Amino acid sequence: MTIKSRLFAQTDGDCVSVENRQGASDIIIICEHASNFVPAAFNALGLSPDVLESHVAWDPGALAVARLISASLDATLVYQRLSRLIYDCNRPPGAAGAMPETSEIYDIPGNRDLSEAERYRRTSAIYIPFHNCISDLIEERERAGRKTVIVTIHSFTPVYHGQKRAVEIGILHDDDSRLADGMLSAAGRGPYLTLRNEPYGPQDGVTHTLRLHAIPSGLPNVMIEVRNDLIADEKGQQAASGFLTQLLTHAIPIQN
Amino acid sequence: MTIKSRLFAQTDGDCVSVENRQGASDIIIICEHASNFVPAAFNALGLSPDVLESHVAWDPGALAVARLISASLDATLVYQRLSRLIYDCNRPPGAAGAMPETSEIYDIPGNRDLSEAERYRRTSAIYIPFHNCISDLIEERERAGRKTVIVTIHSFTPVYHGQKRAVEIGILHDDDSRLADGMLSAAGRGPYLTLRNEPYGPQDGVTHTLRLHAIPSGLPNVMIEVRNDLIADEKGQQAASGFLTQLLTHAIPIQN
Repeated sequence: MTIKSRLFAQTDGDCVSVENRQGASDIIIICEHASNFVPAAFNALGLSPDVLESHVAWDPGALAVARLISASLDATLVYQRLSRLIYDCNRPPGAAGAMPETSEIYDIPGNRDLSEAERYRRTSAIYIPFHNCISDLIEERERAGRKTVIVTIHSFTPVYHGQKRAVEIGILHDDDSRLADGMLSAAGRGPYLTLRNEPYGPQDGVTHTLRLHAIPSGLPNVMIEVRNDLIADEKGQQAASGFLTQLLTHAIPIQN
Repeated sequence: MTIKSRLFAQTDGDCVSVENRQGASDIIIICEHASNFVPAAFNALGLSPDVLESHVAWDPGALAVARLISASLDATLVYQRLSRLIYDCNRPPGAAGAMPETSEIYDIPGNRDLSEAERYRRTSAIYIPFHNCISDLIEERERAGRKTVIVTIHSFTPVYHGQKRAVEIGILHDDDSRLADGMLSAAGRGPYLTLRNEPYGPQDGVTHTLRLHAIPSGLPNVMIEVRNDLIADEKGQQAASGFLTQLLTHAIPIQN
């Protein structure tokens, strides 16, 4: 089989899902690390089930929070159906983290010494369709005279490289801090320790989606990180999404 | 406009051309550096007309030689319609040479500090469709029970970084040298100084197309480099293509 056909056979159709496409909100919610699904042909990338369940393979709880915010605000939601370990859609193809050989303290055997053909296969079947899908959605809204605000939802591990993290919610931004500023000004009243550009910031290369879809065209945008121990169950997910919905509702009128 | 729509508007439709799609030969001829066309929106990448006419922007003569071989052998030809300076389809997206800031002794102002969005735009509109097109062609032939041999055609400058090059024709290969061996064994009888893996070889990262479409699936393959002063006019192009057609005709039955 050719590189292209092998790829689509393995990924079982589209890797990107869109929910509530006709949502009335200005916001498009994006979840690049929604899933830890690894198609059978990848042989679990050589990892044990517990690693595949951990933050190494996905952002646990992020999709649930994203769906709750999407429901509260009637916002379109776009998410990636495959594990970030196969292709991390928040990284460009040349980045070491796009198809990582290591993640935190783990080697990823199925990503070791990838051939150029395998890198092409994953880039063309996972990364490109994901971002083309978002680009198409934005264009569709532009044509309909609608505004767009880009909000990406992530989660992070409470302990990273052995260090405990105190921050509970991170409000991250790149060059355009308008939406983040608005959210942070409201966050002080909330129950979460909410910090700017923590535990990551643009210097860590984590704002790729914002740089593709929002920064060049001036769309208001923000990246949200929630500590995953706070959204491990439905109660935590409800609480965090309620708080984030408040922050977004407070901040977004400021932008328009 | 979104990153996707801006891109297609600038490139004026498809960047990849296929000629003689139903050709009877086992060979698919590929010419990644066929053209020095730079769409108006790129403002000539900040380069003078003489640089855009030079080997910096394309492989002069390569498309003409490729077309002559295609006609002699009744082979399908695939070529890129945009300059290699916009995206070099013989390089993966992470390579410095994919959207080069410098080429030989020239700075390329229009490629300086490209944003992630611009890199995505070029990758998704030029590189991915080019190689997906080749992948589709190979798959079409597989389904029809046809064989495929991959032959890429390039040209090189006689003087590079001030050094004269004696080699006239290079027969380049990656891990699979079968077709190159067959061609080189016949080349001694010809009028050209024909050398193995000169003036470049796989260590220079120039076999990307072979690594994508031929090496993983075991298709016979070769990359041909012709010194561009020898194919600057039709007479030279006829002579070189006649010689290369002989070498291919000699070598290919060995592979089957």
